[in-house]
Parts: sequence; structure tokens; C-alpha cells
Amino acid sequence: MIQKLISNIQKTNAPIVVGLDPMLGYIPEHIQKKAYAEFGETLEGAAEAVWQYNKEIVDCTYDLIPAVKPQIAMYEQFGIEGLKAYKKTVDYCKEKGLVVIGDVKRGDIGSTSAAYAVGHLGKVQVGSRTYAAFDEDFATVNPYLGTDGIKPFLDVCRQEKKGIFILVKTSNPSSGEFQDQLIDGKPLYELVGEHVAKWGEECMGDTYSYVGAVVGATYPEMGKVLRKIMPKSFILVPGYGAQGGKGKDLVHFFNEDGLGAIVNSSRGIIAAYKQEKYAKFGAEHFGEASRAAVEDMAADIAQALESR
Amino acid sequence: MIQKLISNIQKTNAPIVVGLDPMLGYIPEHIQKKAYAEFGETLEGAAEAVWQYNKEIVDCTYDLIPAVKPQIAMYEQFGIEGLKAYKKTVDYCKEKGLVVIGDVKRGDIGSTSAAYAVGHLGKVQVGSRTYAAFDEDFATVNPYLGTDGIKPFLDVCRQEKKGIFILVKTSNPSSGEFQDQLIDGKPLYELVGEHVAKWGEECMGDTYSYVGAVVGATYPEMGKVLRKIMPKSFILVPGYGAQGGKGKDLVHFFNEDGLGAIVNSSRGIIAAYKQEKYAKFGAEHFGEASRAAVEDMAADIAQALESR
Repeated sequence: MIQKLISNIQKTNAPIVVGLDPMLGYIPEHIQKKAYAEFGETLEGAAEAVWQYNKEIVDCTYDLIPAVKPQIAMYEQFGIEGLKAYKKTVDYCKEKGLVVIGDVKRGDIGSTSAAYAVGHLGKVQVGSRTYAAFDEDFATVNPYLGTDGIKPFLDVCRQEKKGIFILVKTSNPSSGEFQDQLIDGKPLYELVGEHVAKWGEECMGDTYSYVGAVVGATYPEMGKVLRKIMPKSFILVPGYGAQGGKGKDLVHFFNEDGLGAIVNSSRGIIAAYKQEKYAKFGAEHFGEASRAAVEDMAADIAQALESR
Repeated sequence: MIQKLISNIQKTNAPIVVGLDPMLGYIPEHIQKKAYAEFGETLEGAAEAVWQYNKEIVDCTYDLIPAVKPQIAMYEQFGIEGLKAYKKTVDYCKEKGLVVIGDVKRGDIGSTSAAYAVGHLGKVQVGSRTYAAFDEDFATVNPYLGTDGIKPFLDVCRQEKKGIFILVKTSNPSSGEFQDQLIDGKPLYELVGEHVAKWGEECMGDTYSYVGAVVGATYPEMGKVLRKIMPKSFILVPGYGAQGGKGKDLVHFFNEDGLGAIVNSSRGIIAAYKQEKYAKFGAEHFGEASRAAVEDMAADIAQALESR
């Protein structure tokens, strides 16, 4: 799947991923109204609004982007109905040729971690049959529990040719509380990065590993260091746009080959129609606003990479 | 909800929680066969087997225990159908008067963390209405992302009088890889423990905080230290039984008032019928085997606490 991600990036010439984090507050009123008219102001109604919103954004952007990253929390808050919309979104994006990164940030130990790995990336055995439950291409994983939590994911990744992105340095303001603490003079995130590199060696594609890392755009200097610690790992970079990251902050997340990073924007793309810059599209044409925002983001990053 | 947990512990005189982690391999053949006969060897069939298995264990033990801890990964691996069985289990246990600790180990930032908090402990807004999606009483939370990841949970806990258990020192062999690393001479888990104590002060019940911690039974010496660092926090202690922890290892997880800890056993209770000790019950009477295992566990802990 890392090969498909690379080939999609090369095809679109855009190392970007659209974060499908559909908060109800982002969803235009006409979409919500229609969904509630059909299903009432219910969890089912909310899930329908989420799905219709996602579908239009994907329809308007899929030819420009290599991947999407649905954030499962935004679906999980609506319970079973929300998770049905998550699964529908995953399937639809895959049909459209996109790589799907499930932003699930799961992490547990032993058989529990194996259950998450199987449920999101692999196949579960039921009697004599097997089923893929959520079936994303990649999943994000939390490292706090150590190798016991990661290994079951590696096993499934090798089997299914899928991948993971492990949280290393997250984009939020308080990420330093634990992640920046110095251990023998070296911050914890570097130690985690070293483990990512080591785990990654056991799961290699042609040039890059199936094991990537999450490093926030909001910490470009740390990204530069981590890029060198994990040369074979793709870095998934959240925090572009709405969280403050800009194209020029991102160049050091990439390798010399122009690969090695994929930059996420969620709000900045899916709720672009709410920004003054794209207001001309209006809420009715929010998908077109998202398309314009994708084009601008791709151009910003391409320019930053060219002028480095 | 911390008050209900305490009152349930005092009523049953058993500071224990049964981990409802229903791996298919644990579920007796007669249950699986019946479920597959009705729904086929499908995800729905697996979910039905899980639910029937849980129901019998709960029916056979609910009067002896204060709480259950369903591990969501074991349900999530079966996709939507599995999660329906999770929700059914949560609801059923609450009907039976049990405190339900959702072992979800979620953790993200800002609005995403808020979505998890709302989805598991709070109520989500849909138009003019609100809905509780999963509606557990407590949830487990991963601290790697810092305060930004925890605060949205605290907000919901205060509003709903619910609680969380934050991972501090997990029970698995490799938990030390990151958690034991020394920061200014102090292990990371102690630093996390100090934060738990601080977060906990903002969320107090009568005598204990709504913010608890997860500390593995497999690390009793660390438990002793953490008990002192977080005097007002309940400690959820996994790792008893199958993972190697024994009653005598647990005494230092408790405060002098006999409270402050709740010990989890999963496999050791729900798959008790597979142990030689309880083999006499047979697979047909697996629920009775679980009941006997609960009685033995409660006695083991009570004895250890009396003789400390």
C-alpha cells in the first residue's frame, strides 16, 4: 500500500491528504436540512449529513489528491450510525482510487492490539470464513505502550501489505508535556522516532517502509531532525493551514527525492467555503471551494519544495 | 459516577472488575454453533455469539461485582455488528446496576478528543436534540498527547458526572520502553502520574477524583509509588491472574481506607471454565465457572488486604 501511496502522489504531483473530519458545524445547512427531513434530527440523520457532505467533497477533489484521512472520532460520536458513515466513506474513497488513512490512533497490547489491527487493516476469522471489518489502507497508532502494542500491527501490515503511521510528535500546543521531555539529553519524540525507524526496517516496501510517523507541521525544526532519524519512513504531517503550518515550514519533512511526507489539511479543505478567500463559492458549492483550496495547497507546497 | 463505583465496591465488598474481552476462542462451542445456525458464519453471527456469551457471564456474576470493563477492540474487530454487541453489553450491564468502564484507550486533541469524550461519556448535539451514543460510565484514555487530549474529557466528565482512567504504567512487558525512561531522574510514568493527580483535582467527587489511572498489577513496586503520587485517584489495575499478578502484589495499590483501587481480570474470569481448577463446570456451565472464579478472586484480594 506504501507503493500505491507513492504512485498516487507522483500521479497527482501533490503530497497532500484531505482530512475528512466532518463536524456538523462544517456541514452546510442545505445538506443537514435534507438529511433531517429524511431521517429526523437523529443519529441516523446526522450520519446521513456526514456521508453526503463527504461524498461531495470526495467527488470534487479525488482526481487532485492521493489520499484521504477520515478521523474516526468524528463518526464515533454518532455511535453505530456514525460508524456506518465512516465505513461508507472508507469504501467510497477506495472505489475512487484514493489511499485511505484511518485516523484511529488506536493502541493497546497483545491480543487487544491484534484485534484493532485485524479490525482496521486485516481480516477477522469467523468459523471457517474471514471478513475485513473496516478495511482502511493505513491506520494511525499510539506508541505509549511500546513494542507490545506495535508488533501486532506490523504482523497484519506484512500480511496485508498495508501500513501504519505512529504518533511521534503531535501538532498540538501541549504535545511537549510528555513528548519533549529529555531522556539522556534526547527528547522522548526522538526516542520514539528511533523505534519507528527500527520497526520500519522490518516492513519495507521498495524504497519506503510501511511504517510511517506522525509529526506536526507546527514543529518544523523537530520535523527536520526526525526526517533524518527515520529516513525510510513516510511522515504524515498534520497541522497545515488551520493549525498554523505553512508550505515553507514543511520542506524539511521531505527527503531529497521529493517524497517521504504527506501533508494533511482537514478544516482548511473541507470547510474552505467558510473562509473569506473561498466565500464566492457559497455554501451551495462547498465542494468547489474545497477543490480550489486543494489546488492552492498543492501549489503552496510545490512552490516551497521547488524553492528549497 | 465515582460515588456509584465506591458504593458498588462497598456493597459487594469486592474491589474487582470483570473484563469483558470476548475473543471467539474463549466462547464455548455451543454458543458459537447456535449463533452461526441463526446468522451464519458472518460478522453478525460472531457478534451474536459475543453478546450471548457476555450476557451469561453477567447474569452469573453481576451480584458479586461492582463493575465491568468491556474492551472495545474485541468488538470493533467485527466492525459495525461487533460494535452493536458492545453497545448492547454496555446497556445490559448498566441495567444490572454495574458500573461500566469502556476500555477504549482513546486519545486525540482538541475537537477530536471532544468528539471521543462526547461519543463515549457525553451527549452529541444533532440539530435541536441530543443523544448519548455509547454512554459508558468511565472510559480509559491515552495521555501521550498531553493536556490538549485530556481536557475535553474532563469537561464532559464534570458535566455528566462520569470519569476516566488515564494510562500511566501499563501491565505489558514492553511498557517500560517509553514509560520507564528517566526524565530528570524520574520515570515518565511518574510524570504522567503527577499530571493525573493535577487533572484529578479539577474533578473531585466526595473523597476520590473522577480522574483515575491505569497501573498494571505486574509492576507492584511502581504501583506503591504511584499510589502516593495520586492519593485521590482510583487506580484501575489490569494484569491480575492470567498476566501474572496476584492478590499479595496488589495491596499497595489501595489506600489505608481499603479503597482507591479496582482490580481487573478478563481471561481469568470469562474463560475460567478452560482452567483445570474450574474444569468441573464444563463448557456448558461456563457462567458458573466465571462465578466461582470471581468468588476466588474476591477472596484472594480480601485476604491480601486483611493481612497487610
